[in-house]
Amino acid sequence: VNAEIITIGDELLRGEIVDSNKARIAQRLLLLDIECRHQVSVLDDPADMRDAFVRAAGRSEIVLVSGGLGPTRDDLTTEVLAETFGRELILDDASLETIRVFFERVGREMAEVNRKQAFFPSEAEVLPNPIGTAPGFSIREGKTVFFAMPGVPRELDLMMDEQVLPRLERAFYGSEFGSEYGPETGAAAVGGSASGVGDAMPVEGRRVVRAALLRTFGMGESTLEAELSDLARDEAVELGFRTSFPDNFLRPFARARTAEEADARIAGLVAAIRDRLGPLVYGEGEDTMESVVGAMLREHRATLATAESCTGGLIAERLTDVPGSSDYFRGSIVAYANEAKTSLLGVPERLLEEHGAVSEQVVRAMAEGALERLGSDFALATSGISGPDGGTPEKPVGLVCIGLAGPSGTHADSFVFQVDRTRHRQLTAQVALDWVRRSLLGVELVGPSLMRRGGGGSAP
Amino acid sequence: VNAEIITIGDELLRGEIVDSNKARIAQRLLLLDIECRHQVSVLDDPADMRDAFVRAAGRSEIVLVSGGLGPTRDDLTTEVLAETFGRELILDDASLETIRVFFERVGREMAEVNRKQAFFPSEAEVLPNPIGTAPGFSIREGKTVFFAMPGVPRELDLMMDEQVLPRLERAFYGSEFGSEYGPETGAAAVGGSASGVGDAMPVEGRRVVRAALLRTFGMGESTLEAELSDLARDEAVELGFRTSFPDNFLRPFARARTAEEADARIAGLVAAIRDRLGPLVYGEGEDTMESVVGAMLREHRATLATAESCTGGLIAERLTDVPGSSDYFRGSIVAYANEAKTSLLGVPERLLEEHGAVSEQVVRAMAEGALERLGSDFALATSGISGPDGGTPEKPVGLVCIGLAGPSGTHADSFVFQVDRTRHRQLTAQVALDWVRRSLLGVELVGPSLMRRGGGGSAP
Repeated sequence: VNAEIITIGDELLRGEIVDSNKARIAQRLLLLDIECRHQVSVLDDPADMRDAFVRAAGRSEIVLVSGGLGPTRDDLTTEVLAETFGRELILDDASLETIRVFFERVGREMAEVNRKQAFFPSEAEVLPNPIGTAPGFSIREGKTVFFAMPGVPRELDLMMDEQVLPRLERAFYGSEFGSEYGPETGAAAVGGSASGVGDAMPVEGRRVVRAALLRTFGMGESTLEAELSDLARDEAVELGFRTSFPDNFLRPFARARTAEEADARIAGLVAAIRDRLGPLVYGEGEDTMESVVGAMLREHRATLATAESCTGGLIAERLTDVPGSSDYFRGSIVAYANEAKTSLLGVPERLLEEHGAVSEQVVRAMAEGALERLGSDFALATSGISGPDGGTPEKPVGLVCIGLAGPSGTHADSFVFQVDRTRHRQLTAQVALDWVRRSLLGVELVGPSLMRRGGGGSAP
Repeated sequence: VNAEIITIGDELLRGEIVDSNKARIAQRLLLLDIECRHQVSVLDDPADMRDAFVRAAGRSEIVLVSGGLGPTRDDLTTEVLAETFGRELILDDASLETIRVFFERVGREMAEVNRKQAFFPSEAEVLPNPIGTAPGFSIREGKTVFFAMPGVPRELDLMMDEQVLPRLERAFYGSEFGSEYGPETGAAAVGGSASGVGDAMPVEGRRVVRAALLRTFGMGESTLEAELSDLARDEAVELGFRTSFPDNFLRPFARARTAEEADARIAGLVAAIRDRLGPLVYGEGEDTMESVVGAMLREHRATLATAESCTGGLIAERLTDVPGSSDYFRGSIVAYANEAKTSLLGVPERLLEEHGAVSEQVVRAMAEGALERLGSDFALATSGISGPDGGTPEKPVGLVCIGLAGPSGTHADSFVFQVDRTRHRQLTAQVALDWVRRSLLGVELVGPSLMRRGGGGSAP
């Protein structure tokens, strides 16, 4: 099957925004084992759009279009698709009502221009958009199905997940498993019989695909690959790798003839990976280090505070980005100036003079000061030289000391992270949060492999 | 002139990486007033690549290709371009030597596979790559010129800036201004006469282009557009708008026959915008709100501290992301728990009981507490309900109170920002930082238009 993505908008062609929609659509297609073969971007220009649509109809069975569904004169996707394939534009009263209600809900009146968004090519199937004013739609043209979706990323994502993928899954792998997604409420045909996708797409025998995403921190990609190389020897399973600094993601993937078989296969692969990697796997799917640490703190009924110098509030910011974090996060003292370390955290001046602000002695005192003054069960502290300036031969740019005070005492260690300022702060925050997780798991507090001071490596 | 960008690589089509090369190439073309009309991505597949090249040659005068110049079997751009247009592959000894020297410099031996990178289609012009092993090249095919460049972003950027843009500028606007970029050292023809671009491209008379980027905060895009609509009536100047939450960017653009004229025109337009918008323009180019606030604090020899509740350390994190921020930033107290507001910031318990943590009274006390305890000249405080939960009829989700204590007293105000949790925190941080800037400028401390509590609007 050939899949093609067409994104539409002058702003893309001018490079005013980086088009991430294509990548996000392609990733989702891969969940159904559908590889995208062509990606095209065109201006808000009817001739160029028509040209792209005709060409896509000639070479691809699935065409995912994003953008051009808005209310303005520049938004031409619906009109041009209809015109290209000789269809009328028909007002869908139900969609018009939905748009009206949407505006009501946000306390504004629907403008006359928004009426346009309730028109669709004849025989289109409407794809509801519960979080925006632009519904999507699909039309079939010969062997090709077009899905037209909004360009706003979160609206696009939701429409892909709730409307498009279930239809594709049913079409390719039979209807048996579509029910997992629940019925697509609100989908309706416009101006005649619906061009239901499921009943007419080429089916290559039932194949069910399951994918997972495992998030790891602390081991380099090539080491991970070597460590796990024997786990995906089978045709039916695959193991992908992706780096997203400072983490590495694993993407196990399983195919089978039935859902049960595929579920069992992916579960087996995930279990084997977890068994092999132990605490290096910190989460799955949409987890983040801060959400995992937060959930563990809540479960242990423990609280956390931070005393941050080089991370400058980043750890606190990440922790409080998680809704409900007030249950376990007490607060932070960002002691950027040395005087603040003394006055707010009670770090003895003597320690600062003797060992300097970037020292294990000082981060210990900072962590213990935060623990006491914020009344938490755990407290993290960071102090380092994130650069680009401020290094000395003895204390080079990249040096960082991390401390964790907790019920069983205080642990501190030093690392040299040879990365730029932003990544230095990100990596420091990740190690620090990972220590809380490891402490609650009762395993050793380590840094990323090869990055201990003097270890010689420079990549996590 | 039609320009087209073709990016090549399986990883793009799978969505494993977001393709930012297209945007960066397109932005650079705009500097020469060349609009990109088509963007295409294809797999590392000879048939698909050939198809894309043939099509591009049929519709575009300038084709910028990125990717597929590496040493592996998957890297096919050079071979397929040569084959598509019936050219031989010829070894360029000078390039081979350059690649060898490159490996020597990084202390490695050149592998046999890298020899491949010194082959080019006949009559190609080689484009040197001083920071990687993959040289680029250009070939002319009828009315179309292809530029083949590496896919590694920094190598691509350098090749665009030092090799491709000067050639295009000479071709389109005569040679007069090409000298700004300096000579393109090392460019050499392969296997016969060079397909010099400059001497054969369509020249539409000399034109010089200048662009600027103005960053504004506090006024909605449509209001900005209305406010400035009369400034770009001339053919020679244009004014673009772009939203990058929570800011709006203005992109003035000027054309002229000489560099002096273009410089004068863009300076005039920028001055007119600044005159019209006053303090709504907070910076230009690569400025950020935190870098601008930092530079102003340094200039005024003033220091800043923060007391953050709902922003959870975000303001401190942003301030300390700027190198050298220890000159003016003292630190932050992230008082997430109420007890921390009392113990660390000295907020009277009575105030918390009487008015609640999200109140102007409490943020005043927080700001004043931070000012005193961190010994700074200015102190910001935030307290709000970022959601998704925690609202009451009287204090809805989205409510936020911001305070600024400074030499001339304490100012506080309340807003309701009806945006999601992440944006609520971003917007709150931006208003707070903007207040420091406005305070140092001696202008009124306002929030985004329409967003004052009860104002009724929902967009900045």
